[in-house]
Amino acid sequence: MRALEEKILKDGKVFPGGVLKVGSFLNHQIDVPFMKEIGREFYRLFRDEKITKILTIETSGIPIAVMAAAEFGVPVVFAKKHHSKNLADDCYVAGIHSYTHGNDYEARVEKQFITADDTVLIIDDFLANGAALDGLLKIIDQSGAHLAGCGIAIEKAFQAGGKRLRGQGIRIESLAMIAEMKEDGSLAFVEQ
Amino acid sequence: MRALEEKILKDGKVFPGGVLKVGSFLNHQIDVPFMKEIGREFYRLFRDEKITKILTIETSGIPIAVMAAAEFGVPVVFAKKHHSKNLADDCYVAGIHSYTHGNDYEARVEKQFITADDTVLIIDDFLANGAALDGLLKIIDQSGAHLAGCGIAIEKAFQAGGKRLRGQGIRIESLAMIAEMKEDGSLAFVEQ
Repeated sequence: MRALEEKILKDGKVFPGGVLKVGSFLNHQIDVPFMKEIGREFYRLFRDEKITKILTIETSGIPIAVMAAAEFGVPVVFAKKHHSKNLADDCYVAGIHSYTHGNDYEARVEKQFITADDTVLIIDDFLANGAALDGLLKIIDQSGAHLAGCGIAIEKAFQAGGKRLRGQGIRIESLAMIAEMKEDGSLAFVEQ
Repeated sequence: MRALEEKILKDGKVFPGGVLKVGSFLNHQIDVPFMKEIGREFYRLFRDEKITKILTIETSGIPIAVMAAAEFGVPVVFAKKHHSKNLADDCYVAGIHSYTHGNDYEARVEKQFITADDTVLIIDDFLANGAALDGLLKIIDQSGAHLAGCGIAIEKAFQAGGKRLRGQGIRIESLAMIAEMKEDGSLAFVEQ
């Protein structure tokens, strides 16, 4: 998606260690009119899949998932990273390692919200090692739902997640794929 | 907002201790077409205020804030509850006590995303004691921005936050105001 690549080049900031900050439009401040365009692009890509639910994980996948869901006219379910008394006992649970924060946590989704009758589109902001996607895929496995595929805003294609998951036969559509992030703060995209 | 009251009566569940679970449409699974109606209602209420930014706090305020922002055509900024290396050092910081989780945390917003030039609408899913709103108001104070008011989906009017904040001259618009939650699981709304 050319518009997202241009936005990353204009407003993204590269930091040492492969860190890309996009807090000005994607995951701290959210450029909502632009998220609407992203939602439309995911709809264009998955419109034939009879999606019944969009699954994401808190926090920064939520705005994209919500704007995509507005196009599909379906509900969003977001996996919770923290147990709380607001959550029912009857949950799907998947352990996830966070490379960003260097810790492990459990993602939870109440069983009533994803069932074997659903066709699910997973949406997230980033794909790097694929740890969060692995967790969401485990949850879909537990539910018996049909997975239509994964819609990702930004894939760090120089990390292993995308290749590994596509190798498992999972459809992954990434709107911007970063081939390389350099020490001088520049970056290059995979030609799409 | 009659449609929200009806949704709460139909799909909400009351638990002992004044707990109202609305995870089927508001804060775990999100009924996105319905959130769009809620966004439109906040637009109707605040359309004359020349809003430039919507401020919320992760996690469950985000879907509502995003759908409202789509109506206003402005960005959302969400305060972060957890420090991370993705966050710049130059932040507004406000301490908040969570009555839901029984802990204290710090909410952070990067200074570049709210400035004295902004007119801010705060959006959140619940208002009870008002602790989260207090934190967001402190952040707006630090920024020098103009506060237009607060748009709340569900106010527990039997708790102290709404009365206290309105007493400070802050405009609070709550789409559903719960007067009472009973032991038998029923609830009553404040007449609006």
